[in-house]
Amino acid sequence: MTAREIIQKKRDGKTLTESEINFFIHAYLTGEIADYQMSALLMAIYFQGMSFDETVTLTRIMRDSGEVVDWSHLPGAKVDKHSTGGVGDKVSLILAPLVAAAGVYVPMISGRGLGHTGGTLDKLESIPGFNTRLPIPRFKKLVEEIGACLIGQTEAICPADRRIYALRDATATVQSIPLICGSILSKKMAEGIDALVLNVKVGNGAIFEDAGAAEKLATHLVRTAAAFNLRTVALLTDMSQPLGAAVGNWVEVCEAFDVLKGGGPQDVRQVTLALGALMLQLAGKTKDLQSGVNQLRPLLDDGAAWQKFLEIVKAQQGDTSFVEYPEKYPAPKHRREVKAEADGYVTAINAREIGRLCMLLGAGRKTVEDKVDYTAGMFIHKKIGDRVRRGEPLVTLQSSGQPPDDEFERAVRSCFTIGTRPPATASRLIQKLLDVNGARSVSEIE
Amino acid sequence: MTAREIIQKKRDGKTLTESEINFFIHAYLTGEIADYQMSALLMAIYFQGMSFDETVTLTRIMRDSGEVVDWSHLPGAKVDKHSTGGVGDKVSLILAPLVAAAGVYVPMISGRGLGHTGGTLDKLESIPGFNTRLPIPRFKKLVEEIGACLIGQTEAICPADRRIYALRDATATVQSIPLICGSILSKKMAEGIDALVLNVKVGNGAIFEDAGAAEKLATHLVRTAAAFNLRTVALLTDMSQPLGAAVGNWVEVCEAFDVLKGGGPQDVRQVTLALGALMLQLAGKTKDLQSGVNQLRPLLDDGAAWQKFLEIVKAQQGDTSFVEYPEKYPAPKHRREVKAEADGYVTAINAREIGRLCMLLGAGRKTVEDKVDYTAGMFIHKKIGDRVRRGEPLVTLQSSGQPPDDEFERAVRSCFTIGTRPPATASRLIQKLLDVNGARSVSEIE
Repeated sequence: MTAREIIQKKRDGKTLTESEINFFIHAYLTGEIADYQMSALLMAIYFQGMSFDETVTLTRIMRDSGEVVDWSHLPGAKVDKHSTGGVGDKVSLILAPLVAAAGVYVPMISGRGLGHTGGTLDKLESIPGFNTRLPIPRFKKLVEEIGACLIGQTEAICPADRRIYALRDATATVQSIPLICGSILSKKMAEGIDALVLNVKVGNGAIFEDAGAAEKLATHLVRTAAAFNLRTVALLTDMSQPLGAAVGNWVEVCEAFDVLKGGGPQDVRQVTLALGALMLQLAGKTKDLQSGVNQLRPLLDDGAAWQKFLEIVKAQQGDTSFVEYPEKYPAPKHRREVKAEADGYVTAINAREIGRLCMLLGAGRKTVEDKVDYTAGMFIHKKIGDRVRRGEPLVTLQSSGQPPDDEFERAVRSCFTIGTRPPATASRLIQKLLDVNGARSVSEIE
Repeated sequence: MTAREIIQKKRDGKTLTESEINFFIHAYLTGEIADYQMSALLMAIYFQGMSFDETVTLTRIMRDSGEVVDWSHLPGAKVDKHSTGGVGDKVSLILAPLVAAAGVYVPMISGRGLGHTGGTLDKLESIPGFNTRLPIPRFKKLVEEIGACLIGQTEAICPADRRIYALRDATATVQSIPLICGSILSKKMAEGIDALVLNVKVGNGAIFEDAGAAEKLATHLVRTAAAFNLRTVALLTDMSQPLGAAVGNWVEVCEAFDVLKGGGPQDVRQVTLALGALMLQLAGKTKDLQSGVNQLRPLLDDGAAWQKFLEIVKAQQGDTSFVEYPEKYPAPKHRREVKAEADGYVTAINAREIGRLCMLLGAGRKTVEDKVDYTAGMFIHKKIGDRVRRGEPLVTLQSSGQPPDDEFERAVRSCFTIGTRPPATASRLIQKLLDVNGARSVSEIE
């Protein structure tokens, strides 16, 4: 069995055996198989796919390439949420304290931003002092004491995924359903959780723009998780425009503060409550979604989620004075308004391009080595369906690196489509709920 | 323009522009683009193909990644032959001196064996002292003085091809028509030749087993060469069994001696004369193929080709005493006969597996670092259509490393299919001749 033979087998559309997948992953981790052979296999998988059994095998081998967190000492459900990545998606920052405040353990291992999507870790690290590099024993202790802890992937967790993910990003092999399943589920199962809520985004800012492809991904994720007896549901939500108004790091953190204090944009609040209610339901804390939402809403409105958030920041060495007094934070060096050039209605927003431009502004990374400007970001003043008049601001840009120039401003403006009439049908924020039995009605959580 | 964007574009089946191909190849050579990105692009090309224009562009950029030999000081046609690789193919060793003896310059840059096919360089280097690593000025001088010189690819010639070819071999991306075209033609055009005869093999020992795929490759090669005004024809010949009786290095060199002296196996002689006649025709030395064959046949029979071969060996520092007295050569330490276990007729031979077993016996390389045992090889005593009796030798194995064991003997025996009747139709050695106008009758060269 050689690397070339295995690549060729997948290239020719055949099914790899467990021992072939196992050999390939392990020989890759020891350096016996080179990056260039792994990337060739990834591209062959992109074209030829993987069977359900292959996907399950890949996921298990990737999970077992590192440590699986052991929670046997801690009774009670451990539940996490994973998002397939969007623009302006600050939900994790709100959801972890909110669900912990409701009495469910949330051991959350998150990623960094790369490409057009931001990352929870970068957002958290924009809080001065906030430490996302905790060792697993400390992570376990904080989950036990506080109910939630948010860290980054460690050396010990899923080394196979960490190395393969970096390659996929550089070789245009991200959009492969079996590879996405293996990557997400191996990492999440290594957290040792009992249940998982997936937020699969749909629309031009999502990994899959097309609703059919996003639903296919959600179905594969839920079925693969079921093969491991991991209780999992997937909520499909709209990503045809940024979520909320803020896109960046510190700006998104501040918007999360608003939601944690009972305010903030309605779309962010609604997605967070829906995902949180699903987490409570999977943890057995509520019978149906509406009662889950009813249970969570007061925790936002009465300050309990906010207090839990402060607890988490403090435990993870963040300076809470910046959280309590955000005006203390360094102001961005540059601010620039992008104004509408015509009257009309916003009929579409290119969320992917907004995300990419935000990255270029300094809020993200072109390569893993790039440093992030935490003050960089955008405020989206007009969303789909909004009336807009010539000269009104569409977006405020802010950053502390190179000031955005006219060309950049034009690029931001052209992310907005302004029509003479409002769009025929506003897209629904929450689009579908999937579990292992298939799609379900979403009316109960709207 | 980033590597990922270009990979993605090809992944999605789009046509790459000249500047994209140029950027990718040059950034790869400078190290800005990594091996793992190149291998992902190669696999994407494997699946999505390349248009004719892309193939021509790729070929030109690869050719121009290094030196193109300049022959402007030397009047007269420079013509080479390239084979797509087969088992027992020692034709180059005979063809170069034969065609040079007929007055045509043959500047031949050859490759090493890898996988199941042998390489002209390894065969030549089995002659003690023979130097295939000559610098280009010396190569030019010997072609001018002797009419032919056989060397390996130097640092100066097609560095892009050298690096990409090694990757393709390790990543199962060899069998891609645009990549094969780019690789063969860039190297051959870097020789600065005026015309090229391609020997495309067909059958289970060839790069493409299927006659249709082999003909498609031949057509693409001839058309791509025509875009550079390189006069090129392709001769499709049978590779459903090894060519001649000897497979290995020194054993093949000895078989080449026999043909150069007017003897040797009929199939080797016939393919060599056909290819040689095509070279003479492209060089303008003969009007039709039959008269080309008529011109070459006496050069084998009267010793002129043999004398030219001795001249070449001497000029390239080979010890001609081993060529004149092959019995001086070290004898292989082990010899073993593989005998037939039943009466009947040979109806099929697995040439690819014969080649692979020969490599394992020591005659080839599993990886580029492996050392070759020049004494290792096989003599095939029974070919397709031959009558065989139980106990008669099918093959003689020889080597100087580990002696071949019973399992190895069984593996060699199972390369032969013995039927009770002779095969219905013997396959034709010379199958088709293609030029830029399409397929032509082969009757005139049989």
